This record gives sequence, C-alpha cells and structure tokens, in this order.
Amino acid sequence: MNKGLKIATIGGGSSYTPELIEGFIKRYDELPVSEIWLVDIEEGQEKLNIVGNLAKRMIAKAGLPIDIHLTLDRAAALKDADFVTTQFRVGLLDARAKDERIPLKYGVLGQETNGPGGLFKGLRTIPVILDICKDMEELCPDAWLINFTNPAGMVTEAVLRYANIDKVVGLCNVPIGMEMAVAELLEVDHSRIRIDFAGLNHMVYGLDVYLDGVSVKDQVIKMVTALDDNSFVKNIHGFGWEPEFLKAINVILCPYHNYYYKSREMFEKVKQEAEAEGTRAEVVQKLEKELFELYKDPNLDIKPLQLEKRGGAYYSDAAVRLISSIYNDKRDIQPVNTRNNGAIASIPDESAVEISCVITKDGPKPIAVGDLPVPVRGLVQQIKSFERVAAEAAVTGDRNLAVLALTINPLVASDTLAKQIVDDMLEAHKKYLPQFFGNFITK
Amino acid sequence: MNKGLKIATIGGGSSYTPELIEGFIKRYDELPVSEIWLVDIEEGQEKLNIVGNLAKRMIAKAGLPIDIHLTLDRAAALKDADFVTTQFRVGLLDARAKDERIPLKYGVLGQETNGPGGLFKGLRTIPVILDICKDMEELCPDAWLINFTNPAGMVTEAVLRYANIDKVVGLCNVPIGMEMAVAELLEVDHSRIRIDFAGLNHMVYGLDVYLDGVSVKDQVIKMVTALDDNSFVKNIHGFGWEPEFLKAINVILCPYHNYYYKSREMFEKVKQEAEAEGTRAEVVQKLEKELFELYKDPNLDIKPLQLEKRGGAYYSDAAVRLISSIYNDKRDIQPVNTRNNGAIASIPDESAVEISCVITKDGPKPIAVGDLPVPVRGLVQQIKSFERVAAEAAVTGDRNLAVLALTINPLVASDTLAKQIVDDMLEAHKKYLPQFFGNFITK
Amino acid sequence: MNKGLKIATIGGGSSYTPELIEGFIKRYDELPVSEIWLVDIEEGQEKLNIVGNLAKRMIAKAGLPIDIHLTLDRAAALKDADFVTTQFRVGLLDARAKDERIPLKYGVLGQETNGPGGLFKGLRTIPVILDICKDMEELCPDAWLINFTNPAGMVTEAVLRYANIDKVVGLCNVPIGMEMAVAELLEVDHSRIRIDFAGLNHMVYGLDVYLDGVSVKDQVIKMVTALDDNSFVKNIHGFGWEPEFLKAINVILCPYHNYYYKSREMFEKVKQEAEAEGTRAEVVQKLEKELFELYKDPNLDIKPLQLEKRGGAYYSDAAVRLISSIYNDKRDIQPVNTRNNGAIASIPDESAVEISCVITKDGPKPIAVGDLPVPVRGLVQQIKSFERVAAEAAVTGDRNLAVLALTINPLVASDTLAKQIVDDMLEAHKKYLPQFFGNFITK
Amino acid sequence: MNKGLKIATIGGGSSYTPELIEGFIKRYDELPVSEIWLVDIEEGQEKLNIVGNLAKRMIAKAGLPIDIHLTLDRAAALKDADFVTTQFRVGLLDARAKDERIPLKYGVLGQETNGPGGLFKGLRTIPVILDICKDMEELCPDAWLINFTNPAGMVTEAVLRYANIDKVVGLCNVPIGMEMAVAELLEVDHSRIRIDFAGLNHMVYGLDVYLDGVSVKDQVIKMVTALDDNSFVKNIHGFGWEPEFLKAINVILCPYHNYYYKSREMFEKVKQEAEAEGTRAEVVQKLEKELFELYKDPNLDIKPLQLEKRGGAYYSDAAVRLISSIYNDKRDIQPVNTRNNGAIASIPDESAVEISCVITKDGPKPIAVGDLPVPVRGLVQQIKSFERVAAEAAVTGDRNLAVLALTINPLVASDTLAKQIVDDMLEAHKKYLPQFFGNFITK
Ligand SMILES: [Mn+2]
Ligand SMILES: [Mn+2]
Ligand SMILES: [Mn+2]
Ligand SMILES: [Mn+2]
Repeated sequence: MNKGLKIATIGGGSSYTPELIEGFIKRYDELPVSEIWLVDIEEGQEKLNIVGNLAKRMIAKAGLPIDIHLTLDRAAALKDADFVTTQFRVGLLDARAKDERIPLKYGVLGQETNGPGGLFKGLRTIPVILDICKDMEELCPDAWLINFTNPAGMVTEAVLRYANIDKVVGLCNVPIGMEMAVAELLEVDHSRIRIDFAGLNHMVYGLDVYLDGVSVKDQVIKMVTALDDNSFVKNIHGFGWEPEFLKAINVILCPYHNYYYKSREMFEKVKQEAEAEGTRAEVVQKLEKELFELYKDPNLDIKPLQLEKRGGAYYSDAAVRLISSIYNDKRDIQPVNTRNNGAIASIPDESAVEISCVITKDGPKPIAVGDLPVPVRGLVQQIKSFERVAAEAAVTGDRNLAVLALTINPLVASDTLAKQIVDDMLEAHKKYLPQFFGNFITK
Repeated sequence: MNKGLKIATIGGGSSYTPELIEGFIKRYDELPVSEIWLVDIEEGQEKLNIVGNLAKRMIAKAGLPIDIHLTLDRAAALKDADFVTTQFRVGLLDARAKDERIPLKYGVLGQETNGPGGLFKGLRTIPVILDICKDMEELCPDAWLINFTNPAGMVTEAVLRYANIDKVVGLCNVPIGMEMAVAELLEVDHSRIRIDFAGLNHMVYGLDVYLDGVSVKDQVIKMVTALDDNSFVKNIHGFGWEPEFLKAINVILCPYHNYYYKSREMFEKVKQEAEAEGTRAEVVQKLEKELFELYKDPNLDIKPLQLEKRGGAYYSDAAVRLISSIYNDKRDIQPVNTRNNGAIASIPDESAVEISCVITKDGPKPIAVGDLPVPVRGLVQQIKSFERVAAEAAVTGDRNLAVLALTINPLVASDTLAKQIVDDMLEAHKKYLPQFFGNFITK
Repeated sequence: MNKGLKIATIGGGSSYTPELIEGFIKRYDELPVSEIWLVDIEEGQEKLNIVGNLAKRMIAKAGLPIDIHLTLDRAAALKDADFVTTQFRVGLLDARAKDERIPLKYGVLGQETNGPGGLFKGLRTIPVILDICKDMEELCPDAWLINFTNPAGMVTEAVLRYANIDKVVGLCNVPIGMEMAVAELLEVDHSRIRIDFAGLNHMVYGLDVYLDGVSVKDQVIKMVTALDDNSFVKNIHGFGWEPEFLKAINVILCPYHNYYYKSREMFEKVKQEAEAEGTRAEVVQKLEKELFELYKDPNLDIKPLQLEKRGGAYYSDAAVRLISSIYNDKRDIQPVNTRNNGAIASIPDESAVEISCVITKDGPKPIAVGDLPVPVRGLVQQIKSFERVAAEAAVTGDRNLAVLALTINPLVASDTLAKQIVDDMLEAHKKYLPQFFGNFITK
Repeated sequence: MNKGLKIATIGGGSSYTPELIEGFIKRYDELPVSEIWLVDIEEGQEKLNIVGNLAKRMIAKAGLPIDIHLTLDRAAALKDADFVTTQFRVGLLDARAKDERIPLKYGVLGQETNGPGGLFKGLRTIPVILDICKDMEELCPDAWLINFTNPAGMVTEAVLRYANIDKVVGLCNVPIGMEMAVAELLEVDHSRIRIDFAGLNHMVYGLDVYLDGVSVKDQVIKMVTALDDNSFVKNIHGFGWEPEFLKAINVILCPYHNYYYKSREMFEKVKQEAEAEGTRAEVVQKLEKELFELYKDPNLDIKPLQLEKRGGAYYSDAAVRLISSIYNDKRDIQPVNTRNNGAIASIPDESAVEISCVITKDGPKPIAVGDLPVPVRGLVQQIKSFERVAAEAAVTGDRNLAVLALTINPLVASDTLAKQIVDDMLEAHKKYLPQFFGNFITK
C-alpha cells in the first residue's frame, strides 16, 4: 500500500477523543492510519484545540507518522476519507440536561436513547447525520460511516432508510461491556467469552453465552441470580433481577433493560439522583470541565485515567477493532448495528438491528438467529416501532409523529403526557429543531 | 333436516344467559335449535335454576320447540352437541374482585384481560377449558367451541396450542361495539358500516372503516378528534384521545387501548372508582344480585332491560350471528379470535388473532392484512408474548413463567412488582390454581 | 343514483364482446350500466363495427337504456369511466400463431401464458397496459381496471409494480371452470360448490373444495382418480392424472398443470395437433372468421351458440359478477388476481396472486392461506420468478432478461434454447416490441 | 487435554478413506486425533481390510500416535466418539449404476442427487442414517455427525426433521471447488477468495465473490462469459453458459446447475457417455477396482495420486477443516448444509440449506442472506419441495409420495414417467428398500 488511511472524526472536540486516539495508537501495526481529521463546529473550537493538541502530543509520544488535523471545515475532512466516525452532540451536554430534566417534571424518565430524551436527541441529530451522508456521497463515496452518536439505533435506522449510502455501522459499547462482565463473573480472560447478541441498540439480548465456544448460559444465569447486583454491567447500576424472572426469560440482559423490566424502581432512582447530585448530563458536565482542565496540561501526553469515570469504557476498543476488521477483512464476530437482512425474524430486512456479525471488508454480515425468544419479541418490536416513527418525525418535522413516537414508547404510554412533553421539549430545543419550525436543512 | 341443533352452554347459570336465549329466539328461523343444555357446577346450582327457569319461560312465550335442559352433568350436555358455548367464570365474581383489588395495592391496574387480573383469570380458566376440550374430543368431536370466557385471546391461544380440537372460535363484543359506535357517530344504520379489524382480543385495531363499502376513515378520525370523549365505545369511558396522537396513528382504536395509550390516567380513574364505588367486579356483584332477584319473578318471560347495565351489549348478537353463519355457511364477514394462518405478518400462523374473517361452515377464514401499521406492531407483539407466556404458565403451573408474564406486561413492567403480585394472587386464588400447588387436573 | 355506470372495453372488437354484452344484460337489475364504450385500434375497425352493431342489436332486443359507443378514441372512452375492461390482443391472432409455432421448432411448447408464448405476449402487452394505466390516472382515477388480457398473472404483476394505479384486478375463467367441473362431477348445482383457490394465474390450486360448506376434497379426489380423463376442465384435455400422484399431492389441479406435471405428453399432443389441424391460434382464426360472418347477420340479436366453441366459457359470468360485487360491495368470495398482501406465505406482499378473495367496493381482499402445501411451493415460486423477470424485461426492453426468463421457465430449462427462441421471436414480433429495438412508448 | 479425539467413520471401507486419513495427518497439530474407527458392513469387509491397512501404513509413515481400528461393530465404533463421519453407500456402486441406467430408459437423467437417482439413493440411505442417529443418541450424545453421503441435502433435511440429534452437518466439495475455480480463473491463491454461498446442496449459488474481501463478481462473470467452458468447476463439464443468461442471472453458478439450466444438452451428453463408456458409476467401478489393487501394495504408505481421478477433490480438506473449526471454535466461514434458522427467506427455519456459516464449537451459524435473487427462488424451492417429499417417502415407505417427489422434480415433470420410473426402481432396489415392502428398520 502506498498511502495510509484517512480518518475523519466529526465532533472531534469531544472529551472522548483521547480514547479514540489511544485506540489508533494501540492498533497501528494492523491499521496504518496516516491522517486523523478532527472536525468540529465553531462553538466547539476551543475544546477542539485543547483535545486536538493533546492528541498531537499522544501521537508524538508514540512516535507514529500520523498527522492530526484540527478543522472547522467538514468538507475538507471528509474529502477522500476512508472512515468517518461521528461522536458529535448537537446542542452539547446542555441539550442532554434538558432531555433528562424536562421529562422528570412529568413523572417520566428522560433516558437518552430509547425514551423522550432519546427521541429529542434523535430529532436533533438525524438531520445532521443525513447531511453528512450527502456530503459523503460526493466527497468520499467509498468511506464507511462508523456512528457512535446516540441514539445509535435510531440514527442507523434513519441512515438506512433516508440516506443514499450503504456503508454505515452503528456502534455501542454495551455488548462488549456485557462480554467483559461475564468474563469477570467467570474469572476468565474476556477473549474466551462470546455472546450471541440480537436485538436493538440499548435493547440487546444475549441469546447464548460461550466460554471457549461451549455454552455456559445456564451457569451464568445461575451465578447472576445469586448476586446482589446482577445487572451484568456496572454503568447503570440495577438492583438485581428477580431470580424467577431471570430464570424464566433465560437470556442475558443488558443494563438498559432495567428501564423496561424495572421501570418504577429506575424512575425513583434517577429522580433521587437528579435531586441529589444532578442528572447524568449535569454530573458529566462537571467531569468534562475537569477533564478539559487536565487536557490543557502541555505535559500530558497519554489518555488520563480520569477519562474512565466519564463512561464510555471500551468505546475506543470497539471502534478501532471494528475499523481494523473492516480494513483487514478479518471476518471475526462483533456485535454492531447494521441492516437486518433477515437475520432476526419479524424485523424488516432494511431495518437496523444490533446483532453479532461477521465483520468483512464488505461490511458486517449478520448471523441469522431466526425467531427471537417469545418473551422478548414484544419489547424489541415496540422499540423498533418507536425508532421508526421517531426517525420519520425527524426527517419530516411532523409534530404529530413526535407525539405518536412518545405515546407508543413504554416509558411514557400516555398520549396526553406525550403531547405535553413534546411541546415542552420542542420549545426548549427550538434552536436545534428547525424542521419543526418550518425550516429544513438543505444543501 | 330431521333433527334440530343441540347447544351446550358451560356456565349456564350466568346472568348473561337470558341475552343468549333471546338471541336464539330471534334467529330461530335461520338456526333451528332444538335443545339448549345449560350446565353449571354445584356451587352455581341455585343461579342455574333461577336463570334456567327464566329461559324456559322466554322460550315458552316465543312459542318455539326448544327444550331447555338444566344440569350439573357436563358430559351429558356435551354428548353430541353441535355448538358448545362457554361463559363460565372460575371462582365467580369474588375471584374477579381479587383480580382487581390486589394489583391496585401495588399501584398496578388489575385489568381483567391483558393485565395481572387477566393473567390470573387465564391461569384459573385455561385448565378447565382444556378439560372441556378433552371431553369434546370424545363426546362431540364435530362440535364448534364458541368461547366467551375472558381472557378470550389467551384462552383461544391455549386451545390452539394445547388442545386437540381445531374447531374453536373466541368471541368478544368489542369489535361489534366499535362498528356500532361508528354508525352512531355517522348517524347511519350499523349494517352499512364495516371495519377491517386486526390485532388481538382487547387489543384490536380498525385498519380501515367503510360506509357502504367506501372508506370513511379520514372522516371518522377527524370527527372523533373533535369530540370530547372520543374513545369510540361507551363501555370503558376514555378521556378523549389527543388529536395529534389519533391523526398520527391513523387507525380506529378500541376502548381497551386506553390502558396502554393512557395508562396513568386510567390507573387514577380506576383507583378512584374502586375507592368511591368499588371495583368493577364489586359493582357488578351488586347488579347481579338485583338481576337475579328480577329473574326469579315467575311472570318475567323476556330479557329484562336492566341486563344492559351489566355490560355485554351485543354479546348475544355476536354469538348467535356467528353460530348461524357457521351453520348456514353464510360467508359473511365477522371479527373473531381464530388461528392467524398468515393473515397478520409477524404473528405465528398457529397463534390466535382477532381479525375480520369470512365465516364459513368450515370455520372462520381470516382476511389477509399483511404487515400491521408500524406504530401498532410493538404493542400487539407484546400482548401476544404475554398471552403465550401466560398460557404456558397455566398449563405447566410454573411460577417463574407467571412472574415473567407479568414482568413483560406493559401495565406492570417491573420484575419485583410482578413477583409480589404473583405471590399475593397465587395465595388468594390458591383454591382455583391447583397446578401451582402440585396438582394437575387429569381425567 | 342519478347516473348509470360507464364501462370502457379496450379491444372492443374482440369476438368475445357479445359474451360480455350478454353478461351486462343479464345482471342489469343489479348493475345499472348506462354506457358501454367499445374501443379498438385502426386495424380492428371493421371487426369493431361488426361486433359493435351486434352489441347494439342485443341491447335493443333486451330493451335496456344502455348506450353502445364504438370508437378508436381511447381517451374519450376512458374519460370518467367507472370500469375499464381489457380484452385486446396486440398483434392479433397472427401473433399468437407465431407464439405457438416458433417454440415448437425448438422442441418446446409455446403455451400462451406461462411459456415462451406467454413471455412474448407479455412483452407485447405490458407496455400497452401501462400506457392505459397512465391514461386512467388522469382520465378516470377512480375506475377499476378489470384485465382479461393474457398472460393475466404477468400483466397484473406488471401493473402492481410499474403503474401508479391500485385498482386493478386480473381475471381468468379457469377457477370458475374448476368449480363448474366439480359441480358436474358431483351432479349438484354449481352454486353449492366452493373451492379455496391459491396460486398464480394458470397455476392455481384448489386447496380444499366444499359442497354446501362441507369439505368434499377426499371424495372428489377419489372420484377423479377413477375417471379416464380426470383433468377437471374440458378446455385443455389432459390424459388423466396418475392416481398415485393425485392422492399424494392432495389438491385440486387446474388444467394448465398438465403442462408441468405431464410435460412430455402435452408437448407430443400439442405438436401432433399443430401438424394435424394447426395450432390453437390457427384453429381459432378459422372459428373467428366464421363467427364474424355470423355476427354480420342483421337479424342476429343474441349471442350465437357457436361462440362457445371459441373457449372462454364463463368469462362474461366471471367478469360481470366481479364488477357487480365491487359496485354493490357484495362481499362474496371470488377467485381473482390481486395483490398478495401476505395471504400466501413466501410470495411478496406486492406481487400478484390468484386467490379466493372477498370482493368489496374497496376491491378484493384475499383470504389468508398461510404456507402452501409443500409439494406445490416450488412450481408456484418458479412461475412467479418467471413472471417477475418477464415483466422487468417488458418494461426495460432488456434482451438478457428475456433470455433469463425463458431459461428459468420449466418448459424451456436451457439457456441455449432460450436464447435461440428469444432471438427468433424478437425478430418475428419486432413490430410490436419497440422497447427491444431502442424505442419506448412514451406519452 | 488428557485424551485425544475419537473419530468414527461409517463406510470406512470406501476408496475415499486415504483422502480422509491424509486430512487428519495434515492437520494433526491442530486436531489431536487419537483413534479412528473405520466401520463397515460384512459385504465390505475385504475392502475395509485393504483400505484400513493402507491407512495404518499412512499413519505409521507420518509417525503419529493415532490408532486405526477396523471393525464391523458399529456400536463399538460410535461409543464415546467425538465426531462421526459417514461415507457409506447402501447397495454400493451397483445401486448407483441402476440409479443412472434405469431413468435413461425413460428419457430422463438419473442424476445421483437431485434427480430420480438421488431420490432412490435417499430412500436407501435415510433409514440407515436415522438408525445411526438413534445409536448416537445413546452411545455418543455429544458427538457431531458429519455427513458426506449423498444426497447430502436430503439426508440432512431428514436428520433435522426425523432424528433426535441436533449436531449434524452435511458436507459437499462443490462450494470449495467453486472457490478454487475462481482462484484459478483470477490466478490468485485460493485463500484470498471468498464466496457468499446460499441455496441447497448441489443447487448452491454464489451470491457474491470477493478477492481479499473486495467484490469481484462483475469481473468474474465477465471473464467467465468469455470462456469456452465457463461452468466454473471441472467435475461436470458444462458447455459454457450463454453470456446473456449469465449476465442477467448475475450470480456464480455451480456445476450441477447444468442439469436445470441446460437440461436437454446434459441429457444428451450423459446418454452418449453412458453408451460410449458406461455411466459414471460404471466408470467409477473400474477406477475403484484399480484403486484397490494399488491400495493392496504393502509398500504404499501415502494417498496414491490416482485417487484424484475418482473425483471428490477437496473432500478431505473440507471435512477435516470443518471438524477442526468445530473442535477449535475457529469461527471461520465455511459453506455447509445446516438448519436454515431464518438465514434464507422463504425456506422454513428447520429445513436444511447449504450456506456460508461461521463455524463455532457450538456448530455452524448461518450468515443471513434475506431474500434470494428473484430468478433463483423458484428452482431452490422446487428442489427443497422435492427433498422434503422424498424424505417423507423414505421414512414412511409411501409409494405415492415417491411418485409425487419425482413428478415435481424438474428433471422428470411427468406423473406417468414418474410412476413408471418409481415402479421400475423400487423393484430394482427392493433389497435395500424394505420400508416400501412392509418392513421397517427398528431397533
Ligand atoms: Mn450505547
Ligand atoms: Mn371481550
Ligand atoms: Mn385464463
Ligand atoms: Mn456433493
């Protein structure tokens, strides 16, 4: 190969960037990146500079021939890129804080992905992503879009249905976190664990789990039911599943299932935390401030440990592992958000699912699971309906569809509440939702 | 024909029986019934006698050659029957009162069909129905089982999956009530209205609605959104759907949808009513007492008007209309609960659905609707998952499955609540749930 | 109603027209037709006049207030029509003669619907039908297109996929003929017989058959296997199915199945007939000549008996019955070609199938049959693949697709033969296949 | 690991055995086999001894600690086996010769897998395989059954539907041969080529083909259409596909497609070869004789080169590669016959398909392909229907089903021919088809 790979990272000023840079450094021997373009918008310029300079110091320390570009010019970044990663946040953490606060007023969880918060994050994000896709058609038609921006399921659905590019993968660290948690539980190296994932983003189930290729699902479920906190992943602390429930459902649950199978308890917990220490966005805002102070230190040339508190564990690992498997046609198994293509029965072929795939240079190829287990079908369909109505609302700017999306969302389940929340949040996010106020992003 | 039809009605002592008798009288010219066997259990003997004697007086007044038999001997009633109708209630209204009261303690609606109340009604009813089916295999293998006993969807599912008889139809008055409500709204005779129904029992949607064969869905939705109380059917008073929601979902809703699309409001309403006037079962108990006092009157020889307050409007019409269409191979369209057979995409062929069917002598033939509209798929799948897990719990007596059924039920959505409610209700209904306490009904 | 119905019949100069006129006369009391517009092209003007004048005499004799219009102006005929029927034949019987003759040279049956003959009839017909559909969008957007023109399955598929009108039904007399044949076999009136039809045009199966609503399939199959000629319908004389085969396949076959389940015998028979008396088209050409001589007789004012030899029994009955059921929202069951909509598993929702439907004012609603019986799935899929590739060839003018369509057709099954036949027939029909020679019909 | 693997090979006296032994020797470092049990029946004892002794010499020369056991005691061989491979041939090559000769009399190709020959090979083989499965349930419930015996698709279907073991894989060398052929065509090492396979055994399609992970399908199809003999695989010489056909079908074909897309040409060729040099079975019989003469040579201690003429190239490679990937949980992609599980739309989940799978210790996991391309759906369904009816005929001994299986087979397509062939072949194979003559294998 004569030339290295060009990576464009939209939302490059994010506090996560050092994580990503570390990932590229670690896998440089298998992934010959020559340029990383960190793009951001004007409001993010200061953060972009801070984090970008840290990135440069990290690369320098690693002694690698990778050029870091900091830019506000998205087109320049996209031009001939090989991979485009997205980690931007329309409206920044302020918007997320509203996503969380407003629904609480109505006795409803905000939930940044599959709840009202997720709906509004999707409404803000999808037009921007579709705009990026249009640019990519022209500037880098062969590039892969690796989307980290939440709600990753809804965003991937929107790209599959409303954009003209096929090469898109949605990525989340929840599945890898579940494998890590099982490895920890069994006290084995995580490379020996494999889970058959199927479902949707933040609504993914482990249909089976293997140690060295041999199913250990029964053992894992037995061990988990005996634990105090058996929610598999630390990120969202559950309260322990009832053993009766876990044995009967007989699959590995993801932490986000707490919102649906423990909905009242989660509401109380989130509400108390919001009162005591602020919502998650508010907590993260403080953390970020501290992180950026650290990042400014001209002597810092590695990813600081404090970044881990921010969440997002394994993100860089998941991302760079995926990119490398595509680039190298590794054909290994990874859980990603991709076109269903018949893998899960009763989900349309063209819809996004989160599922174990073989990762090839031609993209992820989902492993067929057939019918989902009877008890999980309903919730998966419900969230898929929510994602589809929400994505349609995002592209049409139809307020009725936004009300419908929330009404059919299991966290709301009331048309009157849905309407009140939609009206309140439309007003709060007005600046970032031009399509609901008569204006559409066009090129 | 040399011989008239034999009808066996299980739960013949029900206060509804005069309704049914009136139906047979009205349609005698097309449905030559010669014997009606009203069967009940020992505890119901007194009521059976009261209502049975009224039935006899009604037939006498009509001057028809129909023999009414009152019996506790189910086998004698089933022997060579042409149609078996079921309207029994295991544990009577006392049990229903518990189904409603206990969940309220946990902040959860009882809901006698698709909620915790429905689960426990199903757990009590399904073993009895399957026992009746076993008898029918032997005593009247060619008879049709017309099931009115709720939860009619779950019961039909159980018969389709766990019994050896094919000839079963589940029946509900909700769809006919929806057609009546539309007729009233448009101020036309109800025979001119037809709705394309699809979904599940008490979770049925009108995909389109026609006046004289021409779609008037847009007009109906428009009119309904302008009403104060736009819930279509009076039985369960709603609060009016939000116009945004109704326009976006763009289907005709059934009154039970209030529990899922207006869940908080319904909970408050039911709770207040329970406090003010008692739960629905408690109200009905009073009504029934009064009804039976009326029924005792030896001069009464028609269905008393007061029965209408009891609910169940159109039941007899729906039931006898169905029986007549089967008997006469009428090939008219009626909404019933039957084997899906591919009519609704993503529901297994062998599952029960509530859907518009052509009614033939060979049974109901569902009209294909293909994919359900995107926004309604989730809830339908969720209730179907609930019904299937519940039916399996009923036949296995597996407490874990009962906990699972409630956890995935949208009215509960918490494994801890589910477990508490299950334990409380198992204890309360112990007498009628032998399968959960080590005893199975066997023959 | 203030105004009667307007019927537009494309190909009005056809010898079948008196059949259709008779149908309208017979059902005038339920179908108040006020105008019938018989349209034809210039080459057909003489025949149009002859048959049109007969039509006028027939109406006059019946004493009905129906105006017959004879015209070459298609737009005038379509303007505000309520029903458009199509019975035209691009290239007339000369073209059909070539469809039959040319394949025989290659040792292949022409078969005017699902064989090479059908492919080329489709290639000639589909562009014209799509052109009519474009006119209808504008001139009579609420009209129903009732298509009789063969290959009716392929043509309906093409309209469903490539036209902008939804209101299309394809019609064939084979299913009604099968019901008539069963009625004759059982010596009962045909109104007492009903068959559950499912499959494709000229590839339709009777999944069950009922006498007065009770299945008599076993009896019918038993009787048929005992007959000498057990092919159900006289039109295409079979040779009798082998009893082993018929018992095992356990469905009612249509006469066209002889081409696929008795392929060699049919080839020999057709070849011998072609040598002895000419191909079917050549025989029909003679018949038609005689018919038109009869039609000229100014004293003839009824449908002459000789028309029956021409084939097409029950066509008028099928057509006018269908139109009346749509107009009157009769909701009776009739077998037609319509959008599958999930009724037959494994056929796309949007593909055309021939299936028992409830006929409503809103069109035919197919009755769900779920999975086809295992042994018939393959052939149905094969013909559907053939129809779809052929329809795509017709709209694109892609010769490779025409070769593919014939190669996958079971009557050809050879790419080399397919290519030779395609080349030979493209040349022969050049005049009517402009799309394969660089010219597309456009408006 | 304390103990090596035990392999049981049913039909161990086959001339292919040295191929298999060579495979185990080559991969010994990743597959620690300690015992290979070659089992045969009494009639095969002499061949078993000859080939078994060669196997022993091969192992000795390789200096590996693998014990070769020769036995007629199947139970002893199966006891605690880790992998069971089947390569037996009920009735030996004499039966195959009849499978080929008898249909030719009727103008029909025998075709040893998906034609009349395949039907009868299946009828002879399936009861034996199901008997082996019953033994395995008891003697080695954790073992994998790796079936090479043809018709591999029908046999795998039968095991999936009628046996109680789940761990079965059907294997064929056609897909690997297609990859090899493409590698040769592109002049690259075969490890760089990957094909997305989907379909059925001997009816498999390459939906896409990759060089180093990048699709080269267009290039390959272009190159192939330019060749004289473009049938991809040498084993069955085709005549070159017509470029029009190949471009339009736009998939990679397998050599067996010649029977369906070039049916007349293949019939003529096979008939001429049969007349000139004998049928394939007769040619192979001679080859085998020569091979066994070679095998007897006590100095021979490697697989003789002449074995390659016998066909079956890559068999050992495919087999041992598969066993190693299961044993080592390699998760690489291999095409095998396995349970569909939703991977190919419109094929039942529980049916066998030949498809690219990820091979894990838990077995093959098929990669979802969704809908097959339109033009190939029909033939795949037709062969699947044939396989299913044939498998049912094999287990029931129902002659009507055998006639039905052949009638719906595209190579026969005539019920009369089907009946004649079935009767003739039932008589010829009477000894090996006890189930059709009133006797069933039972234990
Ligand atoms: Mn995530
Ligand atoms: Mn009801
Ligand atoms: Mn026809
Ligand atoms: Mn093979």
